[in-house]
Amino acid sequence: MGDIPKEQRASVKQGSGHDATAPVQKVAVPQPGPGQILVKINWTGLCASDKSLIHDEWADFGVKMQDQTKGIAGHEGAGVVVAVHDDVADIWKKGDRAGVKWVVSTCRICEFCTNGTDELHCEKQLNSGFTMPGTFQEYCLTDGRYATRIPEGVKDEEAGPIMCGGVTAYTACKRSAVRPGQWLVVLGAGGGLGHFGLQYAKAMGMRVIAVDGGEEKGKLCKDLGGEEYIDFMQTKDIAAEVLRITKYGAHGVIVFSAVKASYDIAPALLRPGGTMVAVGLPKETTVMAGAPPLMMALRRLNVVGSVTGTLKDVEEALDFTARGLVHPILTKGTLEDVDKFCKLMIDGKLPGRAVLKVAA
Amino acid sequence: MGDIPKEQRASVKQGSGHDATAPVQKVAVPQPGPGQILVKINWTGLCASDKSLIHDEWADFGVKMQDQTKGIAGHEGAGVVVAVHDDVADIWKKGDRAGVKWVVSTCRICEFCTNGTDELHCEKQLNSGFTMPGTFQEYCLTDGRYATRIPEGVKDEEAGPIMCGGVTAYTACKRSAVRPGQWLVVLGAGGGLGHFGLQYAKAMGMRVIAVDGGEEKGKLCKDLGGEEYIDFMQTKDIAAEVLRITKYGAHGVIVFSAVKASYDIAPALLRPGGTMVAVGLPKETTVMAGAPPLMMALRRLNVVGSVTGTLKDVEEALDFTARGLVHPILTKGTLEDVDKFCKLMIDGKLPGRAVLKVAA
Amino acid sequence: MGDIPKEQRASVKQGSGHDATAPVQKVAVPQPGPGQILVKINWTGLCASDKSLIHDEWADFGVKMQDQTKGIAGHEGAGVVVAVHDDVADIWKKGDRAGVKWVVSTCRICEFCTNGTDELHCEKQLNSGFTMPGTFQEYCLTDGRYATRIPEGVKDEEAGPIMCGGVTAYTACKRSAVRPGQWLVVLGAGGGLGHFGLQYAKAMGMRVIAVDGGEEKGKLCKDLGGEEYIDFMQTKDIAAEVLRITKYGAHGVIVFSAVKASYDIAPALLRPGGTMVAVGLPKETTVMAGAPPLMMALRRLNVVGSVTGTLKDVEEALDFTARGLVHPILTKGTLEDVDKFCKLMIDGKLPGRAVLKVAA
Amino acid sequence: MGDIPKEQRASVKQGSGHDATAPVQKVAVPQPGPGQILVKINWTGLCASDKSLIHDEWADFGVKMQDQTKGIAGHEGAGVVVAVHDDVADIWKKGDRAGVKWVVSTCRICEFCTNGTDELHCEKQLNSGFTMPGTFQEYCLTDGRYATRIPEGVKDEEAGPIMCGGVTAYTACKRSAVRPGQWLVVLGAGGGLGHFGLQYAKAMGMRVIAVDGGEEKGKLCKDLGGEEYIDFMQTKDIAAEVLRITKYGAHGVIVFSAVKASYDIAPALLRPGGTMVAVGLPKETTVMAGAPPLMMALRRLNVVGSVTGTLKDVEEALDFTARGLVHPILTKGTLEDVDKFCKLMIDGKLPGRAVLKVAA
Repeated sequence: MGDIPKEQRASVKQGSGHDATAPVQKVAVPQPGPGQILVKINWTGLCASDKSLIHDEWADFGVKMQDQTKGIAGHEGAGVVVAVHDDVADIWKKGDRAGVKWVVSTCRICEFCTNGTDELHCEKQLNSGFTMPGTFQEYCLTDGRYATRIPEGVKDEEAGPIMCGGVTAYTACKRSAVRPGQWLVVLGAGGGLGHFGLQYAKAMGMRVIAVDGGEEKGKLCKDLGGEEYIDFMQTKDIAAEVLRITKYGAHGVIVFSAVKASYDIAPALLRPGGTMVAVGLPKETTVMAGAPPLMMALRRLNVVGSVTGTLKDVEEALDFTARGLVHPILTKGTLEDVDKFCKLMIDGKLPGRAVLKVAA
Repeated sequence: MGDIPKEQRASVKQGSGHDATAPVQKVAVPQPGPGQILVKINWTGLCASDKSLIHDEWADFGVKMQDQTKGIAGHEGAGVVVAVHDDVADIWKKGDRAGVKWVVSTCRICEFCTNGTDELHCEKQLNSGFTMPGTFQEYCLTDGRYATRIPEGVKDEEAGPIMCGGVTAYTACKRSAVRPGQWLVVLGAGGGLGHFGLQYAKAMGMRVIAVDGGEEKGKLCKDLGGEEYIDFMQTKDIAAEVLRITKYGAHGVIVFSAVKASYDIAPALLRPGGTMVAVGLPKETTVMAGAPPLMMALRRLNVVGSVTGTLKDVEEALDFTARGLVHPILTKGTLEDVDKFCKLMIDGKLPGRAVLKVAA
Repeated sequence: MGDIPKEQRASVKQGSGHDATAPVQKVAVPQPGPGQILVKINWTGLCASDKSLIHDEWADFGVKMQDQTKGIAGHEGAGVVVAVHDDVADIWKKGDRAGVKWVVSTCRICEFCTNGTDELHCEKQLNSGFTMPGTFQEYCLTDGRYATRIPEGVKDEEAGPIMCGGVTAYTACKRSAVRPGQWLVVLGAGGGLGHFGLQYAKAMGMRVIAVDGGEEKGKLCKDLGGEEYIDFMQTKDIAAEVLRITKYGAHGVIVFSAVKASYDIAPALLRPGGTMVAVGLPKETTVMAGAPPLMMALRRLNVVGSVTGTLKDVEEALDFTARGLVHPILTKGTLEDVDKFCKLMIDGKLPGRAVLKVAA
Repeated sequence: MGDIPKEQRASVKQGSGHDATAPVQKVAVPQPGPGQILVKINWTGLCASDKSLIHDEWADFGVKMQDQTKGIAGHEGAGVVVAVHDDVADIWKKGDRAGVKWVVSTCRICEFCTNGTDELHCEKQLNSGFTMPGTFQEYCLTDGRYATRIPEGVKDEEAGPIMCGGVTAYTACKRSAVRPGQWLVVLGAGGGLGHFGLQYAKAMGMRVIAVDGGEEKGKLCKDLGGEEYIDFMQTKDIAAEVLRITKYGAHGVIVFSAVKASYDIAPALLRPGGTMVAVGLPKETTVMAGAPPLMMALRRLNVVGSVTGTLKDVEEALDFTARGLVHPILTKGTLEDVDKFCKLMIDGKLPGRAVLKVAA
């Protein structure tokens, strides 16, 4: 491990609440324990969840960054393996390209690790930037049995955001149960998650109605494959417009935007039997993903939640990019830009997904 | 049609809102038009929906009995065919036992009639007691191509309530996606719908946690096959109790009770990936079937609505009774008891399903 | 019905077995009975099944054209409605574009008509060119409640073949259970059914490995969206080649070619858990769609059969063409060419789908 | 590990082919390596697969016991943990009850370990009695991260056979896709696998038609919950009898018997859209699980293979026994009886499942 330094640069959380910051500091470089590999992070995404965790936005739900993180957030990292513990040497070797995700490791024997769909609910899972130090550092430890191999044809700067934002969008498309040739409405289609969702949906054969605000977003949505665009700044009755296009309402709706207005209108965009997917996480505890029982029952609606994806989902999500079908719009910066980018996010002014160059 | 009288007895809606009544009057006996059969109603169920329609409870949602009903509610009828139009004579003959359901006929060519699951959303459907005269009359017309054949082993007094309450409960069990050996919580398990749901779930191999109030309901739930009973009058923290029994939460929850408290607690009873089924229809427009997006997404929950069932669902639901596995608890009366029974329902004092003896 | 003639031209079966022919004759024009419409056939497809029925190829299975057909085969017709029985006048009017399919009508009340997936197995179904006169005539009767509306953007000459060949290919793709991004092998990808299947699979987001013989077919397959092409004339070990491309074997295989060699090799192309779809119908009664139990069990394979599609499937299949995603390769002729085209088919020399111009 | 002896008794394969035997010998007791636990085997099942492996019956398929087994077969073991490697000490402690299965360990990162349904196809899996020493020894090593916890209410002598035969039958029932209230035919219902299948199917709400030979088997099948019994020694036309009972054919058929006659008749017992599950593994390489393409396609049949089950399936299978719903019929012996029991099996004279008492 000759050229691994003792010290490294990391963005470390200071303070709490709205005023919290995450300036770059010097911290020690960790070493792989049993089952672990050390990844030199080339690029890391900066997810809205990182912003929320740094600023304690979910404290009301009891969700806060744990002490074990040492204040280091980040869970969309991509880079190269620089050290490997013996017991995973059959899986990884130095020089391999690896990705670090929100879920770092799972127990593999509990109800959820074995039921085939729910490893993400393993009660013993570790999470990057939440229960262990994340990807906002040059050298990041992760579990060799759950890390993701980055395929040829996917750049590190793209792989990072796909590891969380991309797979979240991809999984949401699968959860929508919309089949090829059917209609999907994407609320917040021009945003960091939404523009991923639009592309995945298109690549999966769905017909996409993109909803967002403004002409610029409209152009983006059309360029990415949206068949229709509804500008919520111009269109008064979105439900009527969706009905006009789809005749009976859409087969599915994904709510990527984290705002009450989107959750309020979403069920009304569905045809009977349709499915609404809740992805965007509003700060307000009063927002509900659902509908009155009479509407739910009489129209036989489905409302489902979705977040990130399994190890397999991530592989599939990356594969779409390797095949050239899905590409994130990136706003690039460096590890020094965490606070600046968080502010842009809060102001709703950060286009696409934010990625930070980490190690040189 | 020798012995079909010109006049008959029917319960006819008078007045509107809370004070509405439905006394028995003399009205004309109708004759079968194209595609129709005339059924002499032996017994009819009195569903909570009939009560709601008679009392205009859903007026706020724009749902009211239409003029074409001539004020005759009812959609759980069972009896014998006494007249058949020529064009359905290959299907029905006089003397056959037939059932009349909420959905009387569908167009059979629209999106919903042909997609294999949604005929119940046919926009041209006619509904018994809502858009055409219902089963609260001695002689009731219905569509020969959508009427249900009542199998041997099922009595008319049972067939009526199964045609709506029974099939609603059965379909809700299917919608829960709970597999044999998994846990289902039934909220309102001692009620008119719930006691059906409990029995169907049991017959489908599910393990049932029945929730209701009081010892008497507890005994009923246990007798009908509930593995566990939670008395909401005694148990303070229902979610904790469900968690204790199931370790991770239930795989499914069906909300049969039409009250806010049930909808509020239901999502908390689910394990990650679990499914909540909305069936009970509260009067308040503010009740939501759903959960905050953070809960929906992080726990990957599913919330689905369900009401009645398809022609095939009804056949299946009746078959469970024919095999002796599901039997309604009946509170019996006559056509003269519509108002009395509605009042008992409003006061929550009507045990099981109400059935009325109609024709002699 | 002023301009409907009394007599018309029709291709009528003469003789039996290999030597049977179907020359054009003058026959009477029929009139719509209850539920029926009369369609002036503009174009009709000539399906391999028509060829098989005219030549009694399935006699060993007990499958032969019935007398009621009056010797008129054909079940891929598209044209315009020229007469409508009163009882379906709310559905169709003169001038509407309509399609005639293999299944002409179903009973709508049996097990299969009501179970949501199986209307095609209705025991009372009528079939075009098999149990009633088919589309090889200028004026063809069909059931107004099961006929297909041809959407804008689809020409009659395309609509005909899609009504049977297209929907068969589309349904087979659905039956394969291959998800977007996964691998599907199409055996006989350059053929009349296969070239449809390739295009539908591509439009549904699947990655297609096309298998057929010769360079010309290879070029066609690539042009239609095949990601890989395996020429069985050049490639000795097809299974090895599929394994090389897909690493573990394909997720699905559709056998469109009606030859033993394809059925023999198909299971070996699958990864564990994969699905093989049997579509092509060999003449030999000894060909099996399946695999030895040890292979089926240890590799957890799935072998499923598929043929035509439901009323809804046909609508969906047409919609892909209306959107410009799927187009049949057509070999065009006239009603006089039935025998000539059958011979080309038998010799394996008919490219794409055969369509015949019928009425002027 | 004070009371673990150095030497132990084991049944060790001698010779090859039909004449092979497996007498008890003294062999060394192994010690747990990384990830492993040592289980003192109380009871082990003797599966037909053990018999086949000992007698090289599958040599023609290239399937033979590997040298690493040291000649020790067996994969249905139940007992108590007597030694635990450090790295799995958070999962197991001495004295825990544990089961050893056919699949001993999987890699957990490959396509099949991560796709949610196929861990059983992990290419790096180890198998008890096939690629490592099995349960026909007093002290058996197994992987602590894939071993099964035996729940209260299940005896060791039952747990052993459930670990393979039971879960194979349970998984086959799931693969049949038969829903509660629908018909399942169980071919070989009185046999070692079949009598499990019958009970699971019943507990899952299916209606079972049991098929086997003789009155004694008939009584057994009825006692275990079979609704109908067809004696193939008495009934000439089994398909006709199934049709009579089910009207359209069964929704599913499971072939547990490893004979050609069962595979030949199975597809004919299905209704359109039905599913046949291949489980029994005949010695002949010419037996096919499948049907002619014309039958597969026109009747839209499904033929699927099934063997053993995932870690989660095993837990679920055991749970049915813990709840008192499924109990194996056992023929008991000791480790010394391997050859005797193999012979009984070959002669078709071993009732139920064979279990051997191993350690004192």
